[in-house]
Amino acid sequence: MKPTQSRKEGARIAALAGGVGASKLLLGLYHECHPKKLTIIANTGDDIVLHGLKISPDLDIITYTLAGIVNSAKGWGFRGETFHALKRLSVFGRETWFNLGDRDLATHIHRTALLGEGKTLAEAADSIRIALGVKARILPMSNQPVPTIIETREGALHFQEYLVKRRSEPVVRGIRFAGVESAEPAPGVLEAIREAGRILICPSNPLISIGPILAVPGIREALRARKRDVLAVCPIVGGKSLKGPSDRMLAQLGHEVSARGVARLYADFAGIFVVDPADKAQVASIRSLGMEVVVMPTVMNTLPQKRALARALLTLMP
Amino acid sequence: MKPTQSRKEGARIAALAGGVGASKLLLGLYHECHPKKLTIIANTGDDIVLHGLKISPDLDIITYTLAGIVNSAKGWGFRGETFHALKRLSVFGRETWFNLGDRDLATHIHRTALLGEGKTLAEAADSIRIALGVKARILPMSNQPVPTIIETREGALHFQEYLVKRRSEPVVRGIRFAGVESAEPAPGVLEAIREAGRILICPSNPLISIGPILAVPGIREALRARKRDVLAVCPIVGGKSLKGPSDRMLAQLGHEVSARGVARLYADFAGIFVVDPADKAQVASIRSLGMEVVVMPTVMNTLPQKRALARALLTLMP
Repeated sequence: MKPTQSRKEGARIAALAGGVGASKLLLGLYHECHPKKLTIIANTGDDIVLHGLKISPDLDIITYTLAGIVNSAKGWGFRGETFHALKRLSVFGRETWFNLGDRDLATHIHRTALLGEGKTLAEAADSIRIALGVKARILPMSNQPVPTIIETREGALHFQEYLVKRRSEPVVRGIRFAGVESAEPAPGVLEAIREAGRILICPSNPLISIGPILAVPGIREALRARKRDVLAVCPIVGGKSLKGPSDRMLAQLGHEVSARGVARLYADFAGIFVVDPADKAQVASIRSLGMEVVVMPTVMNTLPQKRALARALLTLMP
Repeated sequence: MKPTQSRKEGARIAALAGGVGASKLLLGLYHECHPKKLTIIANTGDDIVLHGLKISPDLDIITYTLAGIVNSAKGWGFRGETFHALKRLSVFGRETWFNLGDRDLATHIHRTALLGEGKTLAEAADSIRIALGVKARILPMSNQPVPTIIETREGALHFQEYLVKRRSEPVVRGIRFAGVESAEPAPGVLEAIREAGRILICPSNPLISIGPILAVPGIREALRARKRDVLAVCPIVGGKSLKGPSDRMLAQLGHEVSARGVARLYADFAGIFVVDPADKAQVASIRSLGMEVVVMPTVMNTLPQKRALARALLTLMP
């Protein structure tokens, strides 16, 4: 009954997120809603240990983006980064296919040191985002490592090997999240889903960004219980992924490469599905899956576009 | 009987060494003798774990010096180094009193990763010096950590805290090498001492550079057995240390701050003691300790001075 006041304060939002794609929308939201009302639940299936350092790419991409220090041309890493340490690592014969910048290394060293001292990944993520001045909560999906393994024609590859080292070239035959059966949601994850006014599924790869989060025991069930309030933004527009290998992976695994194809993967837990006007023709068939469908521009190349989509989504929130 | 040929090939040399002071002479030797004949036994009492990274300052100073990549103005670290990662570590509230450059970090990351994979410190040191093209063998005194603890009026400090963080200001009451009783010489150390034509004690701090090496069970005994061939270059000239806090520490621990004071610490295992002309007046009293004394210029500020001392020492070798 007091729409202005409630809009200003806003309900709590929980957002499931991968890396670069999600961060565009999260940056818009971070500008448009009260940052303390936002809890981000990040994919950690991409995490990898390289040179003994624990690297959490999606956590860092989100944190750097909201902290305003990300290299916005690439969507990851530090702005104005240098790579002196990496060049020296190659002198020692170490693999350097994963780009580790000098400033970025400090994050991995800090996180690895905290884990070595017995802190959890969630505590490390919190230490990092607080140090970088990010006011939204950023939680890993789980404190336990759940590496995403891509089964390809050339054998099993860690997701980062598939994506970065092999540039998504090997044909995908399956995806698994190693050890996920015994993983638990990080403290606060289920509470955030339970207590949020709306739960947002960011426009990330459904298979290897949102998929690992959904696979952590208890998370998909918690979303199903909130289905009416779960709002998913489709990462496939006009049959193509805006970023990364989503389209290719969907096709190779026998899914329809379309908004509807993604909607099918989310139909059991997402009550509201947001598609771009480019996919208007699929609205009726997506509705038949038992979801509300909202059509609005979802392509975000500029900050105004990110903020505009965030504002439009906020109008759908209680 | 074939002096020219034997000079050219040269006998094997084993050199006990600390960091910056020793590296001056080692660089001269590296130029003047066959590098493959040289085995360096480095102090690792200075080693420290910071931010989860295993740092071996003396091993690195020696390796970087012989590889020609050291910052020669400082005597440690990389030439043309940057400190971007360190600045970011400070953002995370981590201690930054120990200067870790971006290029240098790669060495510590590589060493820490190798140790994490089950390699020994000696294997890590070998990997590093080979990658950097150093042809002399560089051995840690021991594969086990033996941290040098400085007992001061303000409590016990790790040597690096005393030296770097506290700039050698606290008054020293004692020195101990934690865990040295159960440490073993690294593989090859005792063999190098046994098989060398001459064993050189570099002009390093006798208490905290050479002292820790001597404290590893078996090393001092091995040197005593070779006393006739052990040649020590005095690090105190004219009653002052050329580098670092040797003079201050000697005084605070009740030793005579002079060439003779150092000679007394080495008299049981060093047969030949090399002093600078500045200390000629002490020759007779050092001889009375049961050592041969050789007088030659030992101050090395330039590469020609380093090479000249190395050449002069080589004339004393078999």
